[in-house]
Amino acid sequence: MTRRFLPLALGAIAAVAALIGLSAPVRAGADDDALLETARALFAPLPTDYATAERPITPERVALGRMLFHETRVSADGAVSCARCHLAALHGTDGLPRSIGVHGKALPRNASTVLNTAGQFVQHFGGNRADVEEQAARALLSPFAYGNPDHATAMARLAAIPGYRPLFEAAFPGDPDPVSARNWSLAIGAFERTLATPGPFDRWLAGDTRALSPSARAGLATFVETGCAACHNGPLLGGRTYQRFGITMDYWQATGSERVDQGRFEDTKNDADRLMFKVPPLRNIARTAPYFHDGSVATLGDAIRVMARTQLGRTPGDADVARIEAFLEALTGEVPAHFREAPTLPPGAFTAAR
Amino acid sequence: MTRRFLPLALGAIAAVAALIGLSAPVRAGADDDALLETARALFAPLPTDYATAERPITPERVALGRMLFHETRVSADGAVSCARCHLAALHGTDGLPRSIGVHGKALPRNASTVLNTAGQFVQHFGGNRADVEEQAARALLSPFAYGNPDHATAMARLAAIPGYRPLFEAAFPGDPDPVSARNWSLAIGAFERTLATPGPFDRWLAGDTRALSPSARAGLATFVETGCAACHNGPLLGGRTYQRFGITMDYWQATGSERVDQGRFEDTKNDADRLMFKVPPLRNIARTAPYFHDGSVATLGDAIRVMARTQLGRTPGDADVARIEAFLEALTGEVPAHFREAPTLPPGAFTAAR
Repeated sequence: MTRRFLPLALGAIAAVAALIGLSAPVRAGADDDALLETARALFAPLPTDYATAERPITPERVALGRMLFHETRVSADGAVSCARCHLAALHGTDGLPRSIGVHGKALPRNASTVLNTAGQFVQHFGGNRADVEEQAARALLSPFAYGNPDHATAMARLAAIPGYRPLFEAAFPGDPDPVSARNWSLAIGAFERTLATPGPFDRWLAGDTRALSPSARAGLATFVETGCAACHNGPLLGGRTYQRFGITMDYWQATGSERVDQGRFEDTKNDADRLMFKVPPLRNIARTAPYFHDGSVATLGDAIRVMARTQLGRTPGDADVARIEAFLEALTGEVPAHFREAPTLPPGAFTAAR
Repeated sequence: MTRRFLPLALGAIAAVAALIGLSAPVRAGADDDALLETARALFAPLPTDYATAERPITPERVALGRMLFHETRVSADGAVSCARCHLAALHGTDGLPRSIGVHGKALPRNASTVLNTAGQFVQHFGGNRADVEEQAARALLSPFAYGNPDHATAMARLAAIPGYRPLFEAAFPGDPDPVSARNWSLAIGAFERTLATPGPFDRWLAGDTRALSPSARAGLATFVETGCAACHNGPLLGGRTYQRFGITMDYWQATGSERVDQGRFEDTKNDADRLMFKVPPLRNIARTAPYFHDGSVATLGDAIRVMARTQLGRTPGDADVARIEAFLEALTGEVPAHFREAPTLPPGAFTAAR
């Protein structure tokens, strides 16, 4: 076990302490006003949606994107859709270490929840997708996901279903070529940008002191004190920076990972990116087992222990782990009704490649 | 093209005429009262549900079965559930000629809709499942579907998710071993027995004369006159008898099937069962392309033409096909809300085989 990154971790804890204006770390049991003040400095309530000026939400795009999210007939084997690996029934994940995509292939990494994903600074564990729209467009071509040889093939499959064209025309008025991969990704992006899941923690941040149980509040204090919030901060408690996975020890010794995934380096081949991963958001984390980029850890308690060991060089006691779990449970929100409810897709048979 | 079964088809038409007490076939344009009387003799409104004395529905069983219907973590690769091939978004089917099951394997036959399926006399195209409960239980072990080596393995996967046990206990009170394959199938069966989809045709049968358009009524008359109702009768317009697929010609010459599936004979090896298939229900048929046991025909119009040629030795004109399509469209019902809406499954990681 290497300790060479320990100063970094200690620096991170000090940075948190400085950020929140404390001379000493917050202690569990500190009074609620102080805890709320600390929390408001580190975190923020979820927004209502993740629309931006460049990525507007319109009802027509969201309605179409919601349908396309469930559309299997655009994949190479006719069985893959976004919903295949992002089940509303499992808070936008699939319970698998690594998802099973087209032709039964395992994807390289664990499928993160689609809930609140649009609020991150980049997509995917390696950050190799700028936003949800790029993720959607490239998934169509991934040999692990939809498996299409090119966008034209994918769109030909979609265009073979007569009911879609008027829906694309309504969502992208004036576009002479509405059934396009670009519009496919913009529509799915618009839908995903609506998937915000506020929960008890947001109500507590807004001033409802009873929204968090005493153990959840104690867990929050422990979460901050331990240093977790150095990376897991902001409205999503993550999803805004990269971090090295394994600061105080090699991560795979803690997770039991079968393969050493080098994180961003796998894409960039830049040495500075070795073992760097996007810090995952913790929203709905209690509902999205298994954990980490390879789903190598099955339970939330073990994931907390792995994080403490690999990132902070700590071995938390069972009581601390239980408290943090209680806090993380308060990050669970309701799956939005328009995601839970399946749309009615236009009828038509899957068109296999000729 | 063989004609040796033509007398049978003509006999079927005569039988319908006799059944409905007519000396001549009903003609399109016959007055509405006569058509309604004929229809009431041949068909029936859908029941509210498909519960029986032996297969009762309880709210607890339906709630659990609805969850299990979506549960992927009980399959050998963690990616197969009932909902995988029976999408609410596609009226309980998947748009594929043959579904893709565990480890990416193609199933032997097309996935029929789960809507109203419990109302049939047997399940599957070959009738090799007595009811929806047997279908569910055996799907767990099918090497094409869930792929479990035995029921114990499947139930161990389920029991590893702590949230399930209390739900099984509530659904099967007093059962000392509640998390069992038998109860799994009874719960899923209870859910499936709620999936009735009444539509415009039922309202028309009940006396709402405007529930069917003039073209749908003309299509109904043509449907009866042509002889379709000889087999496609009862509340589901099918699902109550076996019939030879290909009476007036070999079916594969009309469908272009890649393989000659011998129907029931594939299971029974009894010569009398050669080419015998269950008559599929026509409820929601306009929403469940592609058609036939191998999904070899992509559109409803072509499926009507194939049926007319192979079963009745007729070549219907385009206008007749369009009328019949208009009638079949009126057999489309709403997907029940509790099927459309994904349940929230208990959290937990998939447990791979050891």
